[in-house]
Amino acid sequence: MPQSTTSARKWNTRRIEKKRRIDSVRSMCDGKILATDDIIPALEKLIAPHDRVVMEGNNQKQADFLSRSLAAVNPEKLHDLHMVMPSVGRSEHLDLFEKGIAKKLDFAFSGPQSLRISQLVEDGLLDIGAIHTYIELYARLYVDLIPNVALVAGFKADKKGNLYTGASTEDTPALVEAAAFKDGIVIAQVNELVDDEDDLPRVDIPGSWIDFIVVADQPFFIEPLFTRDPRLIKPIHILMGMMAIKGIYAKHNIQSLNHGIGFNTAAIELLLPTYGEQLGLKGKICKHWTLNPHPTLIPAIESGWVETVHCFGGELGMENYISQRPDVFFTGADGSMRSNRTMCQLAGQYAADMFIGSTLQCDADGNSSTVTRGRISGFGGAPNMGHDPHGRRHATPAWLDLIQEPTPLSRGRKLVVQAVETHQAGNKPTFVDKLDAIDVAKQAGMPLAPVMIYGDDVSHMLTEEGIAYLYMAKSEQERRDMIAAVAGITDIGMRISRERVSQLRAEGKVVYPEDLGIRRSDATRSLLAAGSISELVECSGGLYQPPAKFRSW
Amino acid sequence: MPQSTTSARKWNTRRIEKKRRIDSVRSMCDGKILATDDIIPALEKLIAPHDRVVMEGNNQKQADFLSRSLAAVNPEKLHDLHMVMPSVGRSEHLDLFEKGIAKKLDFAFSGPQSLRISQLVEDGLLDIGAIHTYIELYARLYVDLIPNVALVAGFKADKKGNLYTGASTEDTPALVEAAAFKDGIVIAQVNELVDDEDDLPRVDIPGSWIDFIVVADQPFFIEPLFTRDPRLIKPIHILMGMMAIKGIYAKHNIQSLNHGIGFNTAAIELLLPTYGEQLGLKGKICKHWTLNPHPTLIPAIESGWVETVHCFGGELGMENYISQRPDVFFTGADGSMRSNRTMCQLAGQYAADMFIGSTLQCDADGNSSTVTRGRISGFGGAPNMGHDPHGRRHATPAWLDLIQEPTPLSRGRKLVVQAVETHQAGNKPTFVDKLDAIDVAKQAGMPLAPVMIYGDDVSHMLTEEGIAYLYMAKSEQERRDMIAAVAGITDIGMRISRERVSQLRAEGKVVYPEDLGIRRSDATRSLLAAGSISELVECSGGLYQPPAKFRSW
Repeated sequence: MPQSTTSARKWNTRRIEKKRRIDSVRSMCDGKILATDDIIPALEKLIAPHDRVVMEGNNQKQADFLSRSLAAVNPEKLHDLHMVMPSVGRSEHLDLFEKGIAKKLDFAFSGPQSLRISQLVEDGLLDIGAIHTYIELYARLYVDLIPNVALVAGFKADKKGNLYTGASTEDTPALVEAAAFKDGIVIAQVNELVDDEDDLPRVDIPGSWIDFIVVADQPFFIEPLFTRDPRLIKPIHILMGMMAIKGIYAKHNIQSLNHGIGFNTAAIELLLPTYGEQLGLKGKICKHWTLNPHPTLIPAIESGWVETVHCFGGELGMENYISQRPDVFFTGADGSMRSNRTMCQLAGQYAADMFIGSTLQCDADGNSSTVTRGRISGFGGAPNMGHDPHGRRHATPAWLDLIQEPTPLSRGRKLVVQAVETHQAGNKPTFVDKLDAIDVAKQAGMPLAPVMIYGDDVSHMLTEEGIAYLYMAKSEQERRDMIAAVAGITDIGMRISRERVSQLRAEGKVVYPEDLGIRRSDATRSLLAAGSISELVECSGGLYQPPAKFRSW
Repeated sequence: MPQSTTSARKWNTRRIEKKRRIDSVRSMCDGKILATDDIIPALEKLIAPHDRVVMEGNNQKQADFLSRSLAAVNPEKLHDLHMVMPSVGRSEHLDLFEKGIAKKLDFAFSGPQSLRISQLVEDGLLDIGAIHTYIELYARLYVDLIPNVALVAGFKADKKGNLYTGASTEDTPALVEAAAFKDGIVIAQVNELVDDEDDLPRVDIPGSWIDFIVVADQPFFIEPLFTRDPRLIKPIHILMGMMAIKGIYAKHNIQSLNHGIGFNTAAIELLLPTYGEQLGLKGKICKHWTLNPHPTLIPAIESGWVETVHCFGGELGMENYISQRPDVFFTGADGSMRSNRTMCQLAGQYAADMFIGSTLQCDADGNSSTVTRGRISGFGGAPNMGHDPHGRRHATPAWLDLIQEPTPLSRGRKLVVQAVETHQAGNKPTFVDKLDAIDVAKQAGMPLAPVMIYGDDVSHMLTEEGIAYLYMAKSEQERRDMIAAVAGITDIGMRISRERVSQLRAEGKVVYPEDLGIRRSDATRSLLAAGSISELVECSGGLYQPPAKFRSW
């Protein structure tokens, strides 16, 4: 009984509408090139009210000429847009909502704008669709958040629309593909227009995916988010780094890994060529990295620790260094880096032995959040890295090493390491009975508390007190005891008896520095392979060129 | 204490080696174009012994000219290659090992070649690196399996190397990017060479990523793997399909989903426009799909059930139909489909409410495997779809609906539905005490039993007996009881008492057809929206053009 096929349904409404819009701006463009001065009226014609608009809005690279221009359209012409943005980082991103140009927001991260988002929600000017991790957001672009328009940024383009993103390719391919192949309109701002493909360093995105190129009024904004000044690394970070290297990296034979962006992990990067070398670990661990190009990794690279690094995005100042280290980094034939957040997140999730990161708050069960009162800051990428992907099937020694009771059906486990000091700045305890995230969720009407990493996904808890090997816990209560054993002088840490701690140490479930043969007094800054930004520059042979704000000389 | 930078280490060895190899074939090529007849000597120069070589080897599309040519090189010149292949599907893939050209294999799937792989392992001719899911394998290309050479297939290319993959883009972008941006050599076989980019329908992969184009001696091989003939759908599949629609899809408000490729799910696709319509569900459920273009989805598309479909790959015969349904499918400006396995796997994992698939064997705890004795068949994509991704943070109604005991920190859960008949062909029970996979792992020396989906990830077990809502189980024992309650006349099914079943049904943890108001006698083939391939063709208005082997008229 076949269904009737005589329905009058049109099956190409998106394609017809796209053509209509493109035809409507013919007078403003020369082929695919939109005139810079016409961008505002062009956006008013190329976008329609209630459209779903992807704005790049990345972690680092910003299509800021396009976002500033969109914020300047006439709200009577363009209103109720549904913005889909990996990162909401600039004030004009929220001006869109204040002016009524946009109404709904799906996003992944909103660092500096998080307070204002909360305020706009409260004022009824902004509806949150959902808060995602980066790859969830990309994934939904292909399912139920398919864009009508994508606004992205690149370095250069030719007249056919072939786009060179520069080293910070980041999210651009994932954002563009979803629009380009569902009859959406793709507009790319560039710093420079060239005549021909041969004038481009390389092509990151083919011209046939891109509808319009516009030369921006100024180069796109990009921020150095992953530069940590070694001068700010404290002995406590060094102590924790030594424990991590000996008690986790070496113990489990970590070959591939992802580091968070805190000072704890920066310390580890700077300890590998010194303390790691003393332990005879060079060439044995930490060979393959999924990581932004952290300047603090330079000494480990120069001393031969690091075989490969695949990057989510770029880092300002690292461009020349990377282009001179193509055996280590992913670069194009032109020499500049190719980053790709989708593939790097995938690699961090499915091809890495370990993720290690920091957090601001952690409860007695190990649930953690970086959310603090009044802020809706989003998830970024940490939850994807910071969980044990049950979809993984290939085995590595580290992954297998976490099996506690081998049975024919046991599987391995990814190492997810929380590295936290027991107290934050101002002597505020990191370990708390209730995460602030719970109240934030209640206030903001969120369906779930914004937990960054759930306790059941954490395999190791590392503090300045010691390491709790949580994957060894036989019960939830033992897990809590192990966390308490490294929680120091906090309410949670003080609930456990000395006897219980001794027992956990005797069973090897918790280790303190002395159990690892590490003297607290040895944890000094002299162990760092570089003690300052200028020493990183020196170590790079002058190839690393830090942005002005990190220069003190 | 900065590290010395005076090491004599070279940092561009891959780039230099790539240039050397490319220079060595200058006499055989015109720009990027390799002569078809020179392919064997060219491969002998462009590849070196012990290289890591990616071969496409997809689920459907095969770079078979290149694989046949590689199998014909002189093993004294080229040997001990490390092959990295998503799918090992052709006999020459294994001839490589028999001849000593290759030695090590990392792969994801090996359907028809699985027996021979086992034999080669036993004979010491083939070392397995690891068996992966597709996205794990792609991920490792960026971490510790970075290729020296990638051999891929496309439809057309121009002289600059710009590649049009055709509708079956599949894995190609993920494979090429890893080689192109790490100074690997990328060689693409094409069916047709054109002069200029303007002669290509569109560009799927930019020419600057590709080093060599070679016109194949015949068009690349591609297989229709996802076509299920409705004539083979039995009443038992229809009964299960009715239960699924009413007792799972409607109950949990499923908006986005992925279907496996069995007859059970084909039945569901063909029941939506009939039984689903009767239930008043049209426009309410099943709107967004991550799916290969199953022909059995045509009636649901034509009757307006399906808003969007994003595809892993293509399906032979569906090309014209897809190009006339761009509001539903992802297509290029040229009209042909763009598939992308990486993004579709990501979407299936992070943007879908539900995965439903079948299996061959299932144990009392719900662990399942498609592995049978003597075969190493790999994982493909099911484990990624068929698990609850703990890295997910955004909420949907279906995902939240699986929360049993709401607490401030509870999270939702992806629906993972196992749809199995209690017995396979030949009256072999599906439910067994011990999976064959356990012995296969032991024999083959695998570090883990090849479990396709682990029981703890399964939220629903569906058989012709009923549905077990496993996510409601309060203990592992209750979970086992619930599975036994739907396991029918198998050893496992017969272990549970009638009283316990009644209790589980009374608690709503297990439902039988009558509990859902479904009469077994209503489950007849007349409910199918199309009963044969020819009815599918008719339903498509003649746009679906099935391959000859599916034509009976």
